[in-house]
Amino acid sequence: MRFAKGQGTGNDFVILPDPDGQLELSAGVVARLCDRRFGLGGDGVLRVVRTAAAGADVPGSQPAEWFMDYRNADGSVAEMCGNGVRVFARYLLDCGLAAGPELAVATRAGLRLVREEADGQLTVDMGAAQVTGAGRVQLGEHQLDGLAISVGNPHLACVTDMPVWDIDLSAPRLLAPDRPAGGVNVEIVRITGEHEAEMRVHERGSGVTLSCGTGAVAAAVAAATRAGDWAAGRELTWALRVPGGRLAVTPSATASRLTGPAEIVAHGELAGGWLAGLAREQAVIA
Amino acid sequence: MRFAKGQGTGNDFVILPDPDGQLELSAGVVARLCDRRFGLGGDGVLRVVRTAAAGADVPGSQPAEWFMDYRNADGSVAEMCGNGVRVFARYLLDCGLAAGPELAVATRAGLRLVREEADGQLTVDMGAAQVTGAGRVQLGEHQLDGLAISVGNPHLACVTDMPVWDIDLSAPRLLAPDRPAGGVNVEIVRITGEHEAEMRVHERGSGVTLSCGTGAVAAAVAAATRAGDWAAGRELTWALRVPGGRLAVTPSATASRLTGPAEIVAHGELAGGWLAGLAREQAVIA
Repeated sequence: MRFAKGQGTGNDFVILPDPDGQLELSAGVVARLCDRRFGLGGDGVLRVVRTAAAGADVPGSQPAEWFMDYRNADGSVAEMCGNGVRVFARYLLDCGLAAGPELAVATRAGLRLVREEADGQLTVDMGAAQVTGAGRVQLGEHQLDGLAISVGNPHLACVTDMPVWDIDLSAPRLLAPDRPAGGVNVEIVRITGEHEAEMRVHERGSGVTLSCGTGAVAAAVAAATRAGDWAAGRELTWALRVPGGRLAVTPSATASRLTGPAEIVAHGELAGGWLAGLAREQAVIA
Repeated sequence: MRFAKGQGTGNDFVILPDPDGQLELSAGVVARLCDRRFGLGGDGVLRVVRTAAAGADVPGSQPAEWFMDYRNADGSVAEMCGNGVRVFARYLLDCGLAAGPELAVATRAGLRLVREEADGQLTVDMGAAQVTGAGRVQLGEHQLDGLAISVGNPHLACVTDMPVWDIDLSAPRLLAPDRPAGGVNVEIVRITGEHEAEMRVHERGSGVTLSCGTGAVAAAVAAATRAGDWAAGRELTWALRVPGGRLAVTPSATASRLTGPAEIVAHGELAGGWLAGLAREQAVIA
């Protein structure tokens, strides 16, 4: 069983090439692959399967040769991942499975267009962003006001004048709006220059992470609101520093764009003994 | 550049085959390889080099074909690792680089003999263990008495009647003896049956880990002391449950033995682009 390991701004993935859709990927197998001590380690799995072979996993009719079957590290199915789709595209390009500079990727959230920039970074269409209200959150000793923002998933993005590295993001307590089921992602953003900001994110279910694609879009919406660009409908690009590196985001009410690095770290093959042990274990569980 | 990934009771390692000693492994490269987001991820690196090609790295004259060049995840050089040497031996056996069931491995701490058991587990000679005194440590709300034990490195092993899973091991505060430079490893041990115990460990410099070879020996010494076997010089085998699995330890004042599993998870090759990026970065740093 072949694999690759890739990362984008510190979000890392186990990539499983499965062009003909022959892998049966149970939640238990995904969780073990993503286990950082007993497996390969990753924030999630990207199964690389031809759209034609992915069957009912692909919603609608998506004109793309490849489908990104994304799974969270706990084995649950996920719709989309802004950092993951860049790594997915990087893999297709590096392996000659797709030609650049533009390629389409089928995902559970619908078709995503990816473009390889001249410097090798990858830009992905992140869909519409929408300000849905205001909110307030307790972060350690600080209370911050923010904007409730939807980027497909819910965010509360707070612009602050404090260096974001100094704020305790480990356990956000939402004061308003009333906590929706499943919670929200919380971003703190400091504008550091002309269309430049630094941000950190607490992802619901994952805690503080090095980077988050939809979180970067939400942060840019909040920064653009503060700068007066969002209300004026000016779609300008923000340079965002995140703990895992640098991203460029053009927030938009119709089609936000996210640009950032993605790289393949290694290619390999799972050891036969390890796979046999996993199969025995899964058979016992199943 | 080829690699393998292996683990033993949840201690995981990046294995670098380098039979002819041609790799220049700077601390920066090791740290990046062990980075769990931007690299392969591991608690350390095991470079597999022929003793004859390892030159001055090998202390004394050690009659072993292979030398385990062990590095910590931060890139620093380390002498020995009880879980690492089992993974190292597993790699040699799996790849046909050594014949079992007995093999010798050269290490910075001297020659280590490893034996493959009938069930595939590996037993390694861990050297002498010695009780050097008594001590006391604050663990969350609890104060525990323990034995100061040397297994080459310093330990404080505390036998308790509380389930070890319930004790806060995150920040031990040594009350006695006076904290030696570099601190000590702290083990908590509960005897659960006839020569059976469960244990957890806080490793100096690493925090709470899933397993620790020398810590398991120290825990077994403390348990054998409580059982009356240590003072009587009876060298009996203890079954130890650790967070990362199960180990068997025969503590001894002259030659302790540690038995446990080790497996190779995957074999692979680092991507050329990733290596090139690393080389550029290291050149800038150097």
